[in-house]
Amino acid sequence: MSPDQLQSYIRRHIPVAEFMQVSVRRADPDVVEVEAPLPPNLNVHGTLFGGSATAIALIAAWSLVFLRMRTSSLNGGLVVHRQNTTYHKPVAGAFTVQATFASDNAWGEFVESIGRRQRGRIGVVGALRCEGEVAARLEAEFAAVVQREA
Amino acid sequence: MSPDQLQSYIRRHIPVAEFMQVSVRRADPDVVEVEAPLPPNLNVHGTLFGGSATAIALIAAWSLVFLRMRTSSLNGGLVVHRQNTTYHKPVAGAFTVQATFASDNAWGEFVESIGRRQRGRIGVVGALRCEGEVAARLEAEFAAVVQREA
Repeated sequence: MSPDQLQSYIRRHIPVAEFMQVSVRRADPDVVEVEAPLPPNLNVHGTLFGGSATAIALIAAWSLVFLRMRTSSLNGGLVVHRQNTTYHKPVAGAFTVQATFASDNAWGEFVESIGRRQRGRIGVVGALRCEGEVAARLEAEFAAVVQREA
Repeated sequence: MSPDQLQSYIRRHIPVAEFMQVSVRRADPDVVEVEAPLPPNLNVHGTLFGGSATAIALIAAWSLVFLRMRTSSLNGGLVVHRQNTTYHKPVAGAFTVQATFASDNAWGEFVESIGRRQRGRIGVVGALRCEGEVAARLEAEFAAVVQREA
């Protein structure tokens, strides 16, 4: 799935992603990067709304696991189980979120768990940057349930 | 500020709140409750997108502190510093979020801190319910900077 295909998929299935104007810049096995402009994502202070920041970071993080599952022929549901976000500084312009796995062995442990019991959890981190500086950080845990091959 | 006035204020200043169709049902000194429908807040599985859940819970939580500051004549900026959300179960219909202070002494400590150094932090919790059951929980910490009276 190319960045454009991922972007179309996200915007078609997650209406708020379309409203927030989320664009996919990079969709690699270990990194997904998305971008969004400020205007649809403003708060009352004229800077980035924390709820938009987290929602967009979750889209990047979810996409990373979703794509890797697809390329690994793991078909099933993938939902966020929990997340935390720390907002370090106000964001006053367009911004990116880069999502990566939380650890080097996260993917391997996830696949091993799915092989054993058709379900697994996996951690992803997201760094939200504006003008090169990290302005917020997300840590998310996703849960997957995968069907056995027929 | 009545629930209707709060709703107008939020929807005018936070574009994504308008898109997510956030309605204010209750705006009391100790409780803010908001409601939203599922369609603008869907994920790829046809249930509630976790990013929308957190964004709407943050709007309820922020509004609680915002209103209490207004009625206490504390004028200043109020932003989220960090939050975590746990998503317990899928949400397949309209839902509410009820926001309350994280502890009985949260407000008193916040006011005391502002009195001493013009800034303070305060914890708020949010319970997202669908058909009477809690489906997600938010814990958020907000930071305020308040101007000294001239």
